[in-house]
Amino acid sequence: MRCHLMDVLPHIGGQLTEIYPKKPIYDIPGYPIIMAADLVHNLRKQIEPFKPTFTLGERADTIEQNNDGSFTIVGHAGTIIEAKVIVIAGGLGCFEPRKPPIPHIENYEGKGVDYFVKQPEAYQGQRVVIAGGGDSALDWTIELAEIAKSVTLIHRRTSFRGAPDSVDKVIRLVNEKKVNLITNAEVIELEGNEKLEATIVEHHDQRLRLETDNFLPLFGLTPKLGPIAGWGLGIDKTAITVDPLDYSTNIKGIYAVGDINQYPGKLKLILCGFHEATLMCQSAFHHIYPEQKLSFKYTTVTGIEGFEEKSNA
Amino acid sequence: MRCHLMDVLPHIGGQLTEIYPKKPIYDIPGYPIIMAADLVHNLRKQIEPFKPTFTLGERADTIEQNNDGSFTIVGHAGTIIEAKVIVIAGGLGCFEPRKPPIPHIENYEGKGVDYFVKQPEAYQGQRVVIAGGGDSALDWTIELAEIAKSVTLIHRRTSFRGAPDSVDKVIRLVNEKKVNLITNAEVIELEGNEKLEATIVEHHDQRLRLETDNFLPLFGLTPKLGPIAGWGLGIDKTAITVDPLDYSTNIKGIYAVGDINQYPGKLKLILCGFHEATLMCQSAFHHIYPEQKLSFKYTTVTGIEGFEEKSNA
Repeated sequence: MRCHLMDVLPHIGGQLTEIYPKKPIYDIPGYPIIMAADLVHNLRKQIEPFKPTFTLGERADTIEQNNDGSFTIVGHAGTIIEAKVIVIAGGLGCFEPRKPPIPHIENYEGKGVDYFVKQPEAYQGQRVVIAGGGDSALDWTIELAEIAKSVTLIHRRTSFRGAPDSVDKVIRLVNEKKVNLITNAEVIELEGNEKLEATIVEHHDQRLRLETDNFLPLFGLTPKLGPIAGWGLGIDKTAITVDPLDYSTNIKGIYAVGDINQYPGKLKLILCGFHEATLMCQSAFHHIYPEQKLSFKYTTVTGIEGFEEKSNA
Repeated sequence: MRCHLMDVLPHIGGQLTEIYPKKPIYDIPGYPIIMAADLVHNLRKQIEPFKPTFTLGERADTIEQNNDGSFTIVGHAGTIIEAKVIVIAGGLGCFEPRKPPIPHIENYEGKGVDYFVKQPEAYQGQRVVIAGGGDSALDWTIELAEIAKSVTLIHRRTSFRGAPDSVDKVIRLVNEKKVNLITNAEVIELEGNEKLEATIVEHHDQRLRLETDNFLPLFGLTPKLGPIAGWGLGIDKTAITVDPLDYSTNIKGIYAVGDINQYPGKLKLILCGFHEATLMCQSAFHHIYPEQKLSFKYTTVTGIEGFEEKSNA
């Protein structure tokens, strides 16, 4: 069997690469300690002999089952993939921004309100208001202070959750009058016709009106199933219900492994995902080749050569 | 929870330590390649913070359930262990010698017939007959040639299964008249009253009578459940039947993980044992502390300190 991976993220590794690459993990069996990024590096090396292929930076949007039981997967950028088996290893799902409860904020999305900073240069010469108290809010305040016409950071509390070093940098920029900081404050309204023109900030029972070209509410990311939720799979809250013996879903030919699945006793641990993927492969083989017997081989006996694809097969 | 390990082998690691320490394994997730002995070394290091304790070189022989539901385990050397939960991680079981089908061989066990060489010096000045064609037979032929009065190696075929280097050494010893080699031959009878006195060898339709103090049939080891088979557990051939959700057996409080268990879709892989052990721990906790809620923690958040035993607890 051959495997093709589609992921909305630009690199393989999911959360380990995107969220905590430099965090040590202590519960990968055989590694008393390993950095998340190193684990991904080692796994990538381990799969190399099997020559997997990748479509990165593209979200799997729709699936359709063909008459022969195989599937057609279409990505959001139009990539089409044909496969006999789909394995959803989507982790906690797509990470979506936590949106603040400001009335009509969705009307300003893309018209002055951004939940991500994609290109910092886009804010050159603009009056920027950032809201939040974590690393993302602090880091972009520091970076955009050099680029934007003005940067105002609004935070509901007086203490920050971000790295102490970043907090120090922001305070220094405030003292140098390169950043405006308003604590114990909250953006409660947005104004503007075609596009955002001002943010209304509540601060000690006062309403402040700030002329604003760009408002960046940076309150972190929250995982959502995303398009997967519409694929007709059995779903329990935010996870896909699977058979605990082979991690198959209610649609024959579709499996779910890792944090995205749910069965009685499920633990969201990387090591459990490894086991689930292993058993899933056996079931997937029988689904694809119902007539063939799969003889189970040990790498201690055959090495990986015993598993390699025959040339021209 | 604390864990105590009892193993009949003198070192931890089971097959990895005893049978293939220098063999590379390719299917431990995160290790493109690792020697079996190194994996055991790393796992030992990984469990250190949890201060496990060990009784090595002693086989768990009997178990008895106490009135409060806990268990008393007695080892073959008399060690008594009290535990609220027993987890059987016995691999393929006890490795027992393959015995040749020679009439009444059991009468001579310990009286001239040995299936293992425990102390080579015990054969000093003795007339030794070794049977077999593998590494064990070749290695002991070479070693005992220096110690015994005479060594005769009997092999059913003319070619050996052992390492070519060992075969060369034996042939050299035969040429130097330090070893007698009889191929295409088989020991078919044993003679002796109080103890072994002679082996009868069939060789090209002839019967040879060899005066023999010690006969060593070295035909390898075969795994058996051993005493575990008598503990009242549900057993399917050579494995313990478990619930695939928590790897519990038919006796509440006894679990089985790794190669020794059996459930639909079971794969005898080390990585599956890791997953099974992890889920078993959750179930064991609820068995021991039915009233307590177990809050699941991630090492990326808490480190291992979050899991360490409180002092004096």
